[in-house]
Amino acid sequence: MAKTQIAAEPSVPQIVITREFDAPRALVYRVHTDPELLVRWLGPRRLTTHVERWDVRDGGTWRYINRDGDGAEYGFHGVFHGTPSPEGGIVQTFEFEGTPGHVSLQTLTFEERGGKTLVRVNAVFQSVEDRDAMLESGMEDGLNEGYERLDELLAR
Amino acid sequence: MAKTQIAAEPSVPQIVITREFDAPRALVYRVHTDPELLVRWLGPRRLTTHVERWDVRDGGTWRYINRDGDGAEYGFHGVFHGTPSPEGGIVQTFEFEGTPGHVSLQTLTFEERGGKTLVRVNAVFQSVEDRDAMLESGMEDGLNEGYERLDELLAR
Repeated sequence: MAKTQIAAEPSVPQIVITREFDAPRALVYRVHTDPELLVRWLGPRRLTTHVERWDVRDGGTWRYINRDGDGAEYGFHGVFHGTPSPEGGIVQTFEFEGTPGHVSLQTLTFEERGGKTLVRVNAVFQSVEDRDAMLESGMEDGLNEGYERLDELLAR
Repeated sequence: MAKTQIAAEPSVPQIVITREFDAPRALVYRVHTDPELLVRWLGPRRLTTHVERWDVRDGGTWRYINRDGDGAEYGFHGVFHGTPSPEGGIVQTFEFEGTPGHVSLQTLTFEERGGKTLVRVNAVFQSVEDRDAMLESGMEDGLNEGYERLDELLAR
């Protein structure tokens, strides 16, 4: 099982996540940009994901909602900067609607290595406090579980 | 003459700029979002600014070109995250086309203080190297000169 690496230095408003997947780059990119595939792995298993919009182009907006078994909803949205591609990656803004006004910039890159793909997510935040709030939000558990689900999806 | 403050800590991919203007918030916001006013102050005096697009809405894209007397052109572009407003400020991505693929997230806020307005620009970068490159690009001179031009424009 591949391991997710999360790097976060004190006093720096940044998180860098790296994770290898046993699939070629084109496929790993597709599961990040096709809403029908995205909802099958994004986030922890206890939540369902509903994509409201996912307009993968320069200036396109995206929004998804996580719902738990009690009907509670958690919305997220942002915009794409530049034209996403497997080679050039994805640059997007990210905002959790539970804490409006706090925005981060995420850069995803996809590096193919002999049939496997290394995904790197570089997230920079408006402040160290915002970054720390993200780390303390249960992000790591959700991320690990989501990436396990993605392993399962890619294996099918 | 108001002084522009530029704060940049070592090893942190961030620049925070603060500057007071002798005008109410609505006007200071307007000169930042109306392309016809923007071209009259943005950047150093030796360059002319041509706004190609400035679509101030969630997911709207913006692009402008600086030209010098020899015809050299410097393009910049990005997208707006969320709906800009005087009260909520402006969140936008920013990319200099001379170094494509290097993107920053800029958050502008406008705080009115007794008829004057404090503008704060929080820029976070994908890396410390990108931040340092911005500092070494002559940003400070261009910024100071642009803000002097803005003082003159607001006084008219």
